[in-house]
Amino acid sequence: MSTQQTTTGLTGDLLIGARDVRGTHGEVRGVDPRTGEALDPAHGLGGVEDVEAAAALAWAAYPAYRATDLETRAAFLERIATELDAVGSAIVDRVTAETGIPAPRAQGELARTTNQLRLFAAVVREGSWLGARIDPALPSRTPLPRPDLRQRKVPLGPVAVFSASNFPLAFSVAGGDTASALAAGCPVIVKGHSAHPGVSELVGRAVRAAVAASGLPEGTFSLLLGSGRGLGTALVTDPRIRAVGFTGSRAGGLALVEAAQRRPVPIPVYAEMSSVNPVFLLPGALAGRAEEIGTAYVASVTTGVGQLCTSPGLVFALDGADLDRFLASAAAAAGQQPAAPMLSAGIQSAFTQGVERLRSAAAVATVACGGEDAQITAPGRTWLFETDGDSFLADPDLQEEVFGAASLVVRVRDAEQLLEIARRTEGQLTATVHAEPGDHELAAALLPELELVAGRVLFNGWPTGVEVGHAVVHGGPFPATSAPATTSVGTRAIERFLRPVSYQDVPADLLPAELRDGNPLGLWRRVDGELGRR
Amino acid sequence: MSTQQTTTGLTGDLLIGARDVRGTHGEVRGVDPRTGEALDPAHGLGGVEDVEAAAALAWAAYPAYRATDLETRAAFLERIATELDAVGSAIVDRVTAETGIPAPRAQGELARTTNQLRLFAAVVREGSWLGARIDPALPSRTPLPRPDLRQRKVPLGPVAVFSASNFPLAFSVAGGDTASALAAGCPVIVKGHSAHPGVSELVGRAVRAAVAASGLPEGTFSLLLGSGRGLGTALVTDPRIRAVGFTGSRAGGLALVEAAQRRPVPIPVYAEMSSVNPVFLLPGALAGRAEEIGTAYVASVTTGVGQLCTSPGLVFALDGADLDRFLASAAAAAGQQPAAPMLSAGIQSAFTQGVERLRSAAAVATVACGGEDAQITAPGRTWLFETDGDSFLADPDLQEEVFGAASLVVRVRDAEQLLEIARRTEGQLTATVHAEPGDHELAAALLPELELVAGRVLFNGWPTGVEVGHAVVHGGPFPATSAPATTSVGTRAIERFLRPVSYQDVPADLLPAELRDGNPLGLWRRVDGELGRR
Repeated sequence: MSTQQTTTGLTGDLLIGARDVRGTHGEVRGVDPRTGEALDPAHGLGGVEDVEAAAALAWAAYPAYRATDLETRAAFLERIATELDAVGSAIVDRVTAETGIPAPRAQGELARTTNQLRLFAAVVREGSWLGARIDPALPSRTPLPRPDLRQRKVPLGPVAVFSASNFPLAFSVAGGDTASALAAGCPVIVKGHSAHPGVSELVGRAVRAAVAASGLPEGTFSLLLGSGRGLGTALVTDPRIRAVGFTGSRAGGLALVEAAQRRPVPIPVYAEMSSVNPVFLLPGALAGRAEEIGTAYVASVTTGVGQLCTSPGLVFALDGADLDRFLASAAAAAGQQPAAPMLSAGIQSAFTQGVERLRSAAAVATVACGGEDAQITAPGRTWLFETDGDSFLADPDLQEEVFGAASLVVRVRDAEQLLEIARRTEGQLTATVHAEPGDHELAAALLPELELVAGRVLFNGWPTGVEVGHAVVHGGPFPATSAPATTSVGTRAIERFLRPVSYQDVPADLLPAELRDGNPLGLWRRVDGELGRR
Repeated sequence: MSTQQTTTGLTGDLLIGARDVRGTHGEVRGVDPRTGEALDPAHGLGGVEDVEAAAALAWAAYPAYRATDLETRAAFLERIATELDAVGSAIVDRVTAETGIPAPRAQGELARTTNQLRLFAAVVREGSWLGARIDPALPSRTPLPRPDLRQRKVPLGPVAVFSASNFPLAFSVAGGDTASALAAGCPVIVKGHSAHPGVSELVGRAVRAAVAASGLPEGTFSLLLGSGRGLGTALVTDPRIRAVGFTGSRAGGLALVEAAQRRPVPIPVYAEMSSVNPVFLLPGALAGRAEEIGTAYVASVTTGVGQLCTSPGLVFALDGADLDRFLASAAAAAGQQPAAPMLSAGIQSAFTQGVERLRSAAAVATVACGGEDAQITAPGRTWLFETDGDSFLADPDLQEEVFGAASLVVRVRDAEQLLEIARRTEGQLTATVHAEPGDHELAAALLPELELVAGRVLFNGWPTGVEVGHAVVHGGPFPATSAPATTSVGTRAIERFLRPVSYQDVPADLLPAELRDGNPLGLWRRVDGELGRR
């Protein structure tokens, strides 16, 4: 359907199952945020008919895909990683061109993405996610015999994944949402982010190649692009879509949640939306290492030009000389920070508005700002602000996320006000405490408050940097996410796309393998409530 | 605050923490549905100020209650069971008086309720629900060291429980929602059902006694009554309430879901709403045991006067002589069925309307009806109807639940239409198949469709009767429930009231016991992804 080819092998087409389809609802190009240059090719944007085609294929693929055995599905995930590695240098180049993310960071994000796919392959093979349980029949129980009951989890159905702007690989076409949904047995339709359409296509073609190489139905994976909310809404409201993964803005996430709830049959939307990631500097930590913490703070604030969902946007500490030392150190570090390209002109414009909102707030003072750079089209500058605890508590707007390298330090009156602030904090992805052993009495009072506010609580470190493992939670209470009992990073992410089904007195030959007598798959199962490999 | 006392020790007061509070927003009395007699005492109905008082106490109790050790919490649940047993005969008498449920069934439901509490005590002690995971630090990992990450689940906060009309014990004040929320570490505020206010108070006093005997904060439990939706809406929208359990009608459940979603911070509503529990009779089963299945079917339809959420309201079978034999047998059994008191006059009136809707549907014929009984104030009669597959597929209203002893048999054209019907079935709590070995090819095609439609799939039995165990699912896709990934019965029900939190580099003395080195609680934990008791 398409003709245009570029040196990178990109066509600008939608990938609907095995077909290349030219989107006919306008075009979008990647733009180099360092230079403003529009990149080839132009990508055609899709419409309702493309959602229809992709959803039909995904629905057709679902029975066969969910019935794949654990080894086939695990090998498929590993094959995606292999395919990505094979075009790794093209991907890294395109990430840099479309987002301004430096090559080493893009390389790191690619490794994280392929590691994540391989981790989910291991999760699939291990099989605990199937949640197998057996309560054997008790035919002679009185007053009534007990039937044979067995339980496992089944995949929900085709999943729509909305890519993030800020992680063009790890939270995008083959990122955590896609990997965990595929691991669960759900076909995936990705809406790629318009800020990196070329990266999306490169990654999408790698996934498609893995689908074909693994002998899976073509509808296991499709990649769409669309402008505005039309295509996204069509995707979320298609009756064949059974769950949604999203990483992005609060407004975008809430619009999808609302659309999903208005359906005749509502579906879950796993939206990771916004977080200001409060940091609490306790007195002993500040007394012992104010300067060191100040420098490290600015390093964390400026990681990824501040465009990370875990960027520390708020710092709370008791007012006094130690806080002054911290601020002096942070101001010095921020002042030396050069401007760097933000992900897109749109993000840069929103950042500038957010900074202006803080600068014009009566109770907020500017502590420092970093350098400018007129050579960059969408420059991200570093900004530090300060206010006091009373003003902070009086103005809920000061809790609002400014996506970019801006952060607000709050001079808190006393420990009581610090706890009051913790209690009144909105839902967050992370909350951080810096504490020395002498601070542990206050830390012990603070920790239970932070547990109720955040998905991850960390000590003496910085929230930027999210491990992909078994024990991580990248989630948290609303409005950080729309589904606080879940995580979008780490192995528990697979649970979002499953639901339990119970089988009562189902004949042995009709039972799924994971529930058969003799445990042919060698799984951990709960038999009569007792966990074991029986 | 109250003065009125009756021989059963009931006062008709709200139980707000340790206080008896007279509700001042009108009154309600239990009514004997067999005779229409209004029972003593009059129960005062609560208002917004009572929600406020109960929520404040629950919020105050939350930190201490969630911090109870596993043994204390398990013993508390067992103590509730002991307190219920101590007033067991008064409870059974009052159940019979307020609902018309015969004493043996009330006795069985009481045993089920206390067993359920003891089962959750065992679950609490076993501790797997804490979801403990540890990814130890890797300080020399390159390019970056890995931090120490540990994960556990924490309780969501105070939970509002809405009692069901049809199980005045097992799905009411100390039923499955309350037991699982308390097990998770959440204080509970119950809105008792106005159809059995005396039973609610008796059970509520038993729970309160257990709270006091266990040395727990009074706000761990409160019991309110209210009319209309005012008090319920106030409860669901109170910012201190963090989750909702509900069993009842679709309209009632959806109203709570909507109220919870409109909150500034939305919360989950676990509503178990409606289900018609389709039964598929495959040809071999019908050929071999049509009469036997027909009799057993009517026994299931009429259990609890049809007022069970798992009552089989739809039967599908291939048209032909075997189906005629089944229908003749079912008609004979239904014709002999005497009328029995329904739970309340309101439920009886809704049932009559539902029956009239089916009787007046052009494509529906009446197969049989049971006896009448003018002596009973709210008599429930048995009704069987039939239609054909084309008519059924053409009229979505025929899928609608009629709460009571009415059921519709559908004469299906062929196996293809049977599968089409399965695919187009709304979300259900259960789906049942009757099949002989010769039917297994068709059953194997049917089973994957039913897995996607129902929370529990059963063979050669009847859906009424729900085991309380580890492998049961009493849940299912919308509109059977508002949260298809959960169950309201069985040990997995505890998961609804928890969310995971990750702890990064948290100092050892600040870690919760379940995540400490050396596994002091002896829990199953996932260490570096591997399950074990380390």
